[in-house]
Amino acid sequence: MTPSRTTSGRTPGPAGQPAWELLLPAAGAPARRRGRALQEALREAVRSGRLAAGTRLPSTRELAADLGVSRGLVTEAYEQLTAEGYLRGERGAGTWVGGAVRVGGVASTGGGTASGVAATGGVAGAGGAGGVAGAPDVRVDFRPGVPDLSLFPRSAWAAAQRSVLARLPHRALGYPDPRGLPELRGALAGMLARRRGVVADPERLVVCSGVAQASTLLGFVLRARGLRAVGVEDPGSPEHGRLFASTGMETVWLPLDGEGLRPGPLAASGVRAVVVTPSHQFPSGIGWSAERRAALLDWARAVDGYVLEDDYDGDFRYDRAPVGALQGLDPERVVYAGSVSKSLAPGLRLGWTLVPEALLDEVVERKRTMDLGNPVLDQAVLAEFVTRGGYDRQLRRCQRAYRERRDALLAALAEHLPGTKVSGIAAGLHVIARVPARFGPPERFLARAAEAGVALRPLEEYGTARPADGDVRLVIGYAHLPPSAIAEGIGLLAGAVGGRVAS
Amino acid sequence: MTPSRTTSGRTPGPAGQPAWELLLPAAGAPARRRGRALQEALREAVRSGRLAAGTRLPSTRELAADLGVSRGLVTEAYEQLTAEGYLRGERGAGTWVGGAVRVGGVASTGGGTASGVAATGGVAGAGGAGGVAGAPDVRVDFRPGVPDLSLFPRSAWAAAQRSVLARLPHRALGYPDPRGLPELRGALAGMLARRRGVVADPERLVVCSGVAQASTLLGFVLRARGLRAVGVEDPGSPEHGRLFASTGMETVWLPLDGEGLRPGPLAASGVRAVVVTPSHQFPSGIGWSAERRAALLDWARAVDGYVLEDDYDGDFRYDRAPVGALQGLDPERVVYAGSVSKSLAPGLRLGWTLVPEALLDEVVERKRTMDLGNPVLDQAVLAEFVTRGGYDRQLRRCQRAYRERRDALLAALAEHLPGTKVSGIAAGLHVIARVPARFGPPERFLARAAEAGVALRPLEEYGTARPADGDVRLVIGYAHLPPSAIAEGIGLLAGAVGGRVAS
Repeated sequence: MTPSRTTSGRTPGPAGQPAWELLLPAAGAPARRRGRALQEALREAVRSGRLAAGTRLPSTRELAADLGVSRGLVTEAYEQLTAEGYLRGERGAGTWVGGAVRVGGVASTGGGTASGVAATGGVAGAGGAGGVAGAPDVRVDFRPGVPDLSLFPRSAWAAAQRSVLARLPHRALGYPDPRGLPELRGALAGMLARRRGVVADPERLVVCSGVAQASTLLGFVLRARGLRAVGVEDPGSPEHGRLFASTGMETVWLPLDGEGLRPGPLAASGVRAVVVTPSHQFPSGIGWSAERRAALLDWARAVDGYVLEDDYDGDFRYDRAPVGALQGLDPERVVYAGSVSKSLAPGLRLGWTLVPEALLDEVVERKRTMDLGNPVLDQAVLAEFVTRGGYDRQLRRCQRAYRERRDALLAALAEHLPGTKVSGIAAGLHVIARVPARFGPPERFLARAAEAGVALRPLEEYGTARPADGDVRLVIGYAHLPPSAIAEGIGLLAGAVGGRVAS
Repeated sequence: MTPSRTTSGRTPGPAGQPAWELLLPAAGAPARRRGRALQEALREAVRSGRLAAGTRLPSTRELAADLGVSRGLVTEAYEQLTAEGYLRGERGAGTWVGGAVRVGGVASTGGGTASGVAATGGVAGAGGAGGVAGAPDVRVDFRPGVPDLSLFPRSAWAAAQRSVLARLPHRALGYPDPRGLPELRGALAGMLARRRGVVADPERLVVCSGVAQASTLLGFVLRARGLRAVGVEDPGSPEHGRLFASTGMETVWLPLDGEGLRPGPLAASGVRAVVVTPSHQFPSGIGWSAERRAALLDWARAVDGYVLEDDYDGDFRYDRAPVGALQGLDPERVVYAGSVSKSLAPGLRLGWTLVPEALLDEVVERKRTMDLGNPVLDQAVLAEFVTRGGYDRQLRRCQRAYRERRDALLAALAEHLPGTKVSGIAAGLHVIARVPARFGPPERFLARAAEAGVALRPLEEYGTARPADGDVRLVIGYAHLPPSAIAEGIGLLAGAVGGRVAS
């Protein structure tokens, strides 16, 4: 055994403390990239087990000095990884490697006791949840679900199509690998590891037509293993439940609070599978706390269960770095699913799922019998788009547009419906607005809005809660609307319900 | 009631005999088109009930005189519609409207008695049934399943892609109609009615990813209705059974003879659903006789059952007009499924299914939960391709190429393996070759072929029959091979098994 120091770990230690210096390979890089590299390196060290659960990290001051970087950069990395559940910290007491991560190691169980609520259930923020504009009397449609389809990069996509048809070998036009085109699986794995902090092994990535298909694939596989029910977030997307219902699984609503799924009701529900939206919960807009992420994974391990992470809008985060995906904490318990539906267009029907080793063969065989695999040309076009940087450019473009629209919505609500509390604003394509009771009651509010040509969707359509305080709770989708339409719509609404109209 | 003549029907009769003259709207058209128009008009008259079952048709001489067309044209029309089951004739005795057609009318039941054989089961002529070339030691791969991928019309496809991206409205990029793009459903319905004689209501057409998905969709729907088993042709494609197995349905092999599925074993099997390939049976290559088509539909009506018609290679018929699809005879009992996998490329994953009214909503909801619908851009490209004539051009191009290859194969077999009997040559992308026992026995024949780098698939892999006559029965796919490769492959084979090598 090689002796190793145990305080700040300045000395390389093969089994004990790591060489912190080795965590930052790109020391000469610009600050922003160094910060990201530090975070990625720390995440990887935790996952690989090189940093075991319970290991105390050096203080931000010490590590910054060791690495020759600013202390702020280290602080930011610690905060980010704490939010993601890799680290845990107590103010003033220090930072430790958390117990939630499980890639190849062992972790303690969590959980609790309470009562699960059986009900009908529901793909987060998808078209099934509404949002298709165009009823003749609708002037402004705030129902969530679709991105701005005019942002679809037609020229770039056309160029990629041309390039693919010019270079693809003939044999690639045959029956596809049901898992997807190798070049796309590689490109997506790299993109997802970089952007979403997932453990993305291309061998575990299955190209599919989107989160809806990922849900159905998983549902059939779990049903064939004897599971009979899936837990869904309450409030949540009723579409999750419908998709699992089509595979023979019943839905159990599981209550959320401000931090995530409540451990007690989860444990009491008896389910062994749940669908969650931890990065930006749909529809409430909260980000799950690190504790609740850890608790959910503890639960999954304890019951030998699985978590489907619907990362429906993980690409859009406006005021801070995105929270890494839950899957990165335990890729053997979390099935990660995402798509291009919000970033490019739902009509492309292209998505991906990262599948635990234990379920992989069954999921791939299901995919095969469902459709023999996704269309090859589309896959090759997306691969080229991701590889050549088009996808990142598109995300930046959407991010700018959607942040601007969110700000326009917040400003219009503040101006026209004063007193409205808006939450879930940090990310995504929608917010929750709680309009004071004086503009209500809810039924009349919604009826008047509809008469004025403003399509709205109340929060209660997404769950079982029926608060009696008279406030109007709305799930407002804004990403598909230009700022002028947002201002117009909220103005129309205010005129209809007695808000402030003139400015 | 208007009186009407009952002999040759020269007088318009609203309820009795039709005005034969009215059957041929385009009297001034060129002969080839007039022949097709007559066939279509007769078909439509039978379907609509204007020509009731049992109605005797005028003689070919009479009708030709009435219509002012050649007698050969009428004879051809009668023969074609007899082959398709619309008409029945006895040489010298006359031609009647058959009893098999059921669009809105009534028909008698058929059937018989015998024993169904339970076994494991099989999408006809699809990649799953083999045919992916490229094992390192394979020099010529005769396994059936893939078309010639080099015939994919890349420039025309690229042009259609460009055009679609230039003209599609933004909203078309949103979540699709799970049934498919209306413009594609219309285009396909027209093409299928024209080319395949199906009753193609765009409202009943569901765009899907191919025959495999059509099978799975139907399997889930029938299973939910309580059906537990599906009958498949023996010999047939094992893939049909695998797909239905994924939906919880068992497979029952049902024996074929030279005319189609034997009615006795079918009736005795107890199944209420079958998958068939009546236009060009896979793998035997027979076309089902009109009697067996009628008997199958009688059976389906009697047991309140359904028939899945896998029209996997209906587009390719070399020596006569294609036999119309079974679905045209009873669209309420036949689920018709086809795809572009043989005409364009399997990698496109685009197909269609025509669904009886009674199953439509369930099939569409299944399609929705499986993948929310096919990719929109691909659908729009195919719609444009069909509408602008590109699809017909492609079929003509493939038809020419594949006929040439079939002829090359027949010539090579006759030269190098004399005595080989080849069947199923009238259509499709493969033939059945029965090589005389003197080149065998089968195990040694296949082993020597493999050593020589010739990949072959024996017929016995497609069913339960194991003839003991020592002849070698092969399913030889030729469509993917240029004539030179076909000649080379059969020459290699002859060298390995003692055939005639030099020429």
